[in-house]
Amino acid sequence: MQVISNIQEMQQWSRQKRLQGLTIGLVPTMGYLHAGHLSLVRTARQQCDVVIVSLFVNPMQFGAGEDFEEYPRDISRDKDLLENEKADILFTPQARDMYPPGYSFLVETEGEITGKMCGASRPGHFRGVTTVVSKLFNICGPDKAYFGQKDAQQVTILEKMVKDLNFPLEIIRVPIVREPDGLAMSSRNVYLGSEERREALVLYRSLQAAAEAIRDGEKSVEELKRTIIAIINSSPQAQIDYVEINRADDLSSIDRIEGTVLIALAVKFGTTRLIDNLIVEV
Amino acid sequence: MQVISNIQEMQQWSRQKRLQGLTIGLVPTMGYLHAGHLSLVRTARQQCDVVIVSLFVNPMQFGAGEDFEEYPRDISRDKDLLENEKADILFTPQARDMYPPGYSFLVETEGEITGKMCGASRPGHFRGVTTVVSKLFNICGPDKAYFGQKDAQQVTILEKMVKDLNFPLEIIRVPIVREPDGLAMSSRNVYLGSEERREALVLYRSLQAAAEAIRDGEKSVEELKRTIIAIINSSPQAQIDYVEINRADDLSSIDRIEGTVLIALAVKFGTTRLIDNLIVEV
Repeated sequence: MQVISNIQEMQQWSRQKRLQGLTIGLVPTMGYLHAGHLSLVRTARQQCDVVIVSLFVNPMQFGAGEDFEEYPRDISRDKDLLENEKADILFTPQARDMYPPGYSFLVETEGEITGKMCGASRPGHFRGVTTVVSKLFNICGPDKAYFGQKDAQQVTILEKMVKDLNFPLEIIRVPIVREPDGLAMSSRNVYLGSEERREALVLYRSLQAAAEAIRDGEKSVEELKRTIIAIINSSPQAQIDYVEINRADDLSSIDRIEGTVLIALAVKFGTTRLIDNLIVEV
Repeated sequence: MQVISNIQEMQQWSRQKRLQGLTIGLVPTMGYLHAGHLSLVRTARQQCDVVIVSLFVNPMQFGAGEDFEEYPRDISRDKDLLENEKADILFTPQARDMYPPGYSFLVETEGEITGKMCGASRPGHFRGVTTVVSKLFNICGPDKAYFGQKDAQQVTILEKMVKDLNFPLEIIRVPIVREPDGLAMSSRNVYLGSEERREALVLYRSLQAAAEAIRDGEKSVEELKRTIIAIINSSPQAQIDYVEINRADDLSSIDRIEGTVLIALAVKFGTTRLIDNLIVEV
């Protein structure tokens, strides 16, 4: 595996590969890789001739008071893991090159798709994501780009971005990878104390309970939310940020369960904010 | 020359050409072509293996009350002119495909570069331009994209967009083409009555007078603006929108002439708004 930090060098490398007729897979990450990321890399490895993994903790997608400084980093471990997965390139651009002095362009969308859920709790977050991902697309020129279903709202917004702005590539959604006890893999799980880690299981349990209620015929979104909230609140340390049930394709609001729905939640344990979700098809 | 209206077909065509190792030149236009456009096409023809000319009157870059509906159109004449210049593709996407229902993504920048000059008179105009040009870049995948120096602020903003968002291409600025009497070529010149057409010559005359004053040692931007304004106001029908002298590279404001400056103006004759500019290097 080759490590490239220079943006122009990365762009040249990708141009060469395209000219050779090779397909390029891109896995954008913020590093501190876990089994969820590796599942993205493995999927890319199966589907593409060459695989680029980018590692960039993007300051633009962190709000004031969020965990940009503390965000966990361990690049030498990340390198070993990616060697193991046979990634071709680890792309590690520097913030001063991604956002040089005078940088000003933004790629963004308004409306329901970004205004609710994580967009409501983290103003400006998705603008940071869509801007940096646009840059990574232009630098790496992928045929396919891989994102985890864990960040359900993010991948839905990015799919819309690709469609609206005609990026010549396909977004591939990869399923959530969970710990054996059900907790969704996240780089932020390391923040959890042992008590919090135990209680964090209420997230997946509450999602499963809602899915089961839907299978048993429950149609009321309000009723299902009440079920989820009751289970989460059984954990003394959990503080709910949001519990939402929306249409899966465009995140628009619904009152009654119909078609394919996304049950999504964000819950804080102390200062650690965790998200999880489940897609249910009726 | 082949005419393509379908976005996916255009994207496929470009992908094929890139895979064949051919370089692609893109000339984005709103049609009603004049010698200025043809000069862009000719430059692209010299520098690239294949040349795409896009023709799309982009509703997003017209404000309320502007001339979107009346904007002149003559596609069969445009086709003949482009056949003549040996363009390979005329790309004529439809508005309903470029902006389908639910479309919401924008590419934009804030700050001095868009807030002044035409950006002040036409709020939202440059956001429309940067969004549609991003889409055209993603659809046509050019190696080089050609824009006229006539729209000086536009090309400066697009150069910054390419740099900030890392589009893998080069913007080529092509000099202004003028009528024999000095009026800058513009699709909007057809709006002018014969009296207005005669008086419109004050634009280039005033720019030349300012350039001459600079060569003669004048350093005061205020003084130079006064010279320009006096000449324009010698035309009874001219109504000045703006007269500005800024740094040419980033359009930042200056008080004294130094380095390379852009003298730019916008003037209305009746309902017709004309722009012109001159770059002067001291």
